[in-house]
This record gives sequence, structure tokens and C-alpha cells, in this order.
Amino acid sequence: MLAPIAWSTPPAAYGPWEQVTSHLTEGLVKRGIDVTLFATATSRTAGKLVATTAAGYAEREGQDPKVLEYLHISQVMGVANAFDIIHNQFDFMPLGYAPLVNTPMVTTIHGFSSEQIVPVYERYNDSTDYVSISDSDRDDRIDYIATVYNGVDPDQFTVNREGGDYLLYFGRIHPDKGAAEAIAIAKRAKRPLWIAGLIQDHDYFRDKVAPHIDDENVRYLGNVGPDERDRILGGAYALLHPISFEEPFGLSVAESMMTGTPVIAFDRGSMPELIDHGKTGYLTDSVEGAVDLVSACGDLHRREIADSARDRFSVERMVDNYIDVYDKILSR
Amino acid sequence: MLAPIAWSTPPAAYGPWEQVTSHLTEGLVKRGIDVTLFATATSRTAGKLVATTAAGYAEREGQDPKVLEYLHISQVMGVANAFDIIHNQFDFMPLGYAPLVNTPMVTTIHGFSSEQIVPVYERYNDSTDYVSISDSDRDDRIDYIATVYNGVDPDQFTVNREGGDYLLYFGRIHPDKGAAEAIAIAKRAKRPLWIAGLIQDHDYFRDKVAPHIDDENVRYLGNVGPDERDRILGGAYALLHPISFEEPFGLSVAESMMTGTPVIAFDRGSMPELIDHGKTGYLTDSVEGAVDLVSACGDLHRREIADSARDRFSVERMVDNYIDVYDKILSR
Repeated sequence: MLAPIAWSTPPAAYGPWEQVTSHLTEGLVKRGIDVTLFATATSRTAGKLVATTAAGYAEREGQDPKVLEYLHISQVMGVANAFDIIHNQFDFMPLGYAPLVNTPMVTTIHGFSSEQIVPVYERYNDSTDYVSISDSDRDDRIDYIATVYNGVDPDQFTVNREGGDYLLYFGRIHPDKGAAEAIAIAKRAKRPLWIAGLIQDHDYFRDKVAPHIDDENVRYLGNVGPDERDRILGGAYALLHPISFEEPFGLSVAESMMTGTPVIAFDRGSMPELIDHGKTGYLTDSVEGAVDLVSACGDLHRREIADSARDRFSVERMVDNYIDVYDKILSR
Repeated sequence: MLAPIAWSTPPAAYGPWEQVTSHLTEGLVKRGIDVTLFATATSRTAGKLVATTAAGYAEREGQDPKVLEYLHISQVMGVANAFDIIHNQFDFMPLGYAPLVNTPMVTTIHGFSSEQIVPVYERYNDSTDYVSISDSDRDDRIDYIATVYNGVDPDQFTVNREGGDYLLYFGRIHPDKGAAEAIAIAKRAKRPLWIAGLIQDHDYFRDKVAPHIDDENVRYLGNVGPDERDRILGGAYALLHPISFEEPFGLSVAESMMTGTPVIAFDRGSMPELIDHGKTGYLTDSVEGAVDLVSACGDLHRREIADSARDRFSVERMVDNYIDVYDKILSR
């Protein structure tokens, strides 16, 4: 398992690729599969850990990410023969090694950081198998073996059958994710808004978010860890997810539903795949549309939302699906 | 020949790694060696060109250097078996592929962009052979097969037996290279200073260089191409090279001497290897020291300086030395 090395696997707080990698690794180990995790030394696994760097390049300053990245990837490839399959969770960079090693490689495409990366994936269509994390995130130029949704650990989430009164924004603070739109929706719906997440775009936070924080109508909770996350998600009336980009998979959307909290999302990217409109949340195209739907969230059954999320987005489901992918590759 | 892809090979103006790569490639082809150059499509060679990218990432904006870099390197490695030897001129990034391909790889270390890169070279001591570009640039942790000085094409430089009256600064405008010190030396030596080179540090240029430019005592000529370079170097009284870093090899120092123009350099890095103190120029430790040595440059024999440079730093000498390296590797 070739993990990303921005953060530890699992991450202490933010680090969605590392989180999914950890869930899959631990899920496979539980099924009795012999997994070696190549990740930062700050990582933890019930499998074997090969630490390729002392700490992630986003965890500890002063490291050269490019150096760490090359050492990390080449360390896996140097021992490729020891494994039946290599699962690449670390973007396009390992692809060029695929034709040089005999071990089959499967690559989960967690997202395209730029349009310029697509031709790289395309070039290695014949050398590696690709998994998309939603059907919406597929690109016509790339051949996929399967779509496997990211899995969430149900044990980390408590089903909250009542919820609370506040609306919640949960994600990194960046224009793509729509914190400003969430504030506008909450104000017009006359409900308090709690905001949780890593500040990724500091100018955006300063200009569009911070001026509204009054610790009453709008609260900012910072970047929260797993325990707080469960409580904050479950205690919400609804999650607002007014994204302005084609989000390949919304981890916080699945997590929110795990606690029973419905989601009002803008109808883009993977949202129609994640949200069952009128059952687990609502899809809309505008702030106005979202405001109108806030009251309708009261009609949704939080227990059913949680059950649906457990069925569709659990780690167990993801592990099942990846084992199918591995079987398919190894039986060729 | 795995060229860097910041610029074309050879570069239109700035691009020292690409320039050396081009000289070596063309020199080898002239000796009848079958060379395939992996470089930008903007490159030219008498050998075979495999273009891995339309243009260099420093030549054309809007490209993702990381994408180009991975595609470039993996394209070479994917056809490694077609070659007797791979000569890597592109930094540490190709090293991780060395244990995965059967073709021997030799890597010229053009410089360490940071201290953090040294352990990467160290790790692949057994997988690739390293060439240093000066003895001074060697690191104790790395095993080297040879030092090969960068070669300059003597045909691009005319021996100017008289020289002129101006002092010359020739190099990128960056604190490391000492344009400000050159200005101080020239002012105190009461000689005009011509400055030529790419502005790499714009703040430094604005603060430390631009205020002195009066087109009489201090002139800035911009980033000059090959024809102008010959004329400007040959027409100088002396080249000032008051560096403040351990420069691994000073291409402009060798080029200046090719025209017969002596060099006054700060005694750091490879300077004592390049300059024969009292014969082809002078080494000193300070602005004051350099000022005192300016008049002494009049005693040096420009024809002898040019002859010495032709003997020690010609492309032919570099090609000879690299062929020795290749022979040594292939005869193991």
C-alpha cells in the first residue's frame, strides 16, 4: 500500500487520502490479507509499516517534498517483487515505474490536481489499473477497472436520532468548498452556522468568512479531530455543502450521513451519487434553493440516513470492493 | 542522454545544464557514437532527438513542471534496454529508476540544489555512477567515478589579444553571484563595469544593482546570446566573479578565459581549480583585495590564458573524459 506522505496514515486531523488509505489497509489486515504500508514513520497500522520518511511534508516544515516523494516511491518500487500487487494511493507520480516492475499496480485516482495530469494517466492506461472514487470523476481518456467509493469507519460515528438546531459547514476553508455560501444560506434560513475545517485559503478566510464570525450566529471551531467530529456532525440539524467545483467524492458528506445528519449540497460532481435526494438530503443549484430546503430537512428520517450511509459508504463495503478489484487483476 | 527540460538543449540563452548536455551530445556524435537525446521538442542535435515535451517548463508558461518531469524521465526509463548506457544530466529525480533498469546509469551532479538532496544521491551510490563537475563540489557521502569539468566550445569564442578597458560581470543576477560586489570593485578601481545576465532575483536587482546603472560607469546589457557573449567577454579588461557561495563550476569563468580575458574571483568553491592564480587570473577574499588586483591583470598574457582554457575546458577535453567514464563503466 503506497500511501501519500503529506500527512501520517491515518492523519491526525486533515488528510483525506491518507485517511482512506488507512481505512483500506486496516480493513484488509482484518480480513487476513498480508499488507505492507509504505508511509511516514508517524503512521500506524496493524499490518507492516515501512517508513520512508520521518514525518509527512505537510506535518513537519523544512523538508523538501520532492525529495521525500522520490525516495518514498522508489523505495516501494525497489522491492516490488516482494508483493502480489501494489496499490498506489499517491497520485500520478508512481505511474512511470509501472512498466518497469513486474508486480501489477492499481492506482486509485483521488482527484485530478490539474487538467495537465490527465494525459499522464492516459499514457499508462495499459500499465496500471485505475479506480475512480465516483462515476462523476471519470475522464473519458482513462480506462477504469472500477469505481470504489471512499469508505468511512461507522464505529467512529454515533447515530444521533435527534440532531440539533445548527447548520454545519465541515471542510477545508477554500472558495471551492463554499464556506461563504454556507454563511449566506444560514443567515437567510435564520439558523446558527458552525464552521469546522482547516484554513487552506487564508485570504478567503479573512475576507469572506472571518467578518461573519460572532460566536453566536456564526462560529468557527478550527480543524477538528475524530472525537469532536462525531459530536459536531451528529449534533447538527443539517450539513451545508454548497461546493463550486466538481468534487470527486465528499468525505464529510458521507461522514455526516453516518451520524444521521442530512446534507444540503449543490448539485455538482459526485453529489448526486452520494445523496439520495429527498431521502438522505437534498440537491440544489443555488443559495436560494438551499434556503428553501432547510426546513424540509426536518422531514427526513435520521436513522434511515445513517443506515443508508452504513450500507453504501462503510469501510467494509470499500474493502469488499477493493478485494474484488485485486481478484480481477490477479486472475488475469 | 537524459537532458534537463527547463530549457531547450542547447538553450537559447540561459541554461547551463542544457548547454553542457548539448556540447557533450554533439561532441559524442562527432566521434561516431550513437546518441539519442531525450529533451524538449525545441532542442537540436546531430544525434537522434526524442522529444518528451513540446517546450521546457522555464521556456513556456502554464505547464506543470512536475508532470513534464515525470513523463520525461519515465519515457527514457521505459526504453532503457535499447541503450548501452544512460547519462543522466537531470538532477536526482532519475536515480530511483536506476535499480529497476538493467542499463547502467551515470549521473553528472551539476550542483546540489539543497542539502536535503545529498542523502538521495548517497542512497543510490551502488546503483549509479556519479560524476562531479569539480573536485570542490564533492560530498564525502557520495562515491564518484570521476571529476569532469564542463566543456566550452572554443569555436564560439574568439581570442582577443588586446581586450578593452571595462570590467565585466557575467552571470545571473543573484546575491550568490555578487553583482553588487562587482559594482563596488569597479567603482573603486575607477573602471566602467558592464553587467550581463538573466535577472534571477528581482528584488536584489532593484535594490542593489539598478540604482547604480547610469549607462556610463555601470551598464546593464540584459541576458545576452552566444554572439554578443563572445564580443562582450573578449572585449573586457577582466571578468569579476566575486561569488558568495561554493560555486561548483563557473561556466562564465571558463568562457572568459577562452577569449583571453583574465578573471578576478573570490576564492570559493571551484575557483581555485578553474583559475591559475597569477597566470589566468587572480583569487582573492574581498572587494578590497579585488580592487588591488585589477591593475595586475594588465601583466597577464591573454594569449596564454586562452590557450590554457582551450586545453583544460574545451568540449573535446570533456568528451574525452566522459568517454573514459563510459569505458570504465562498460568494461566492469
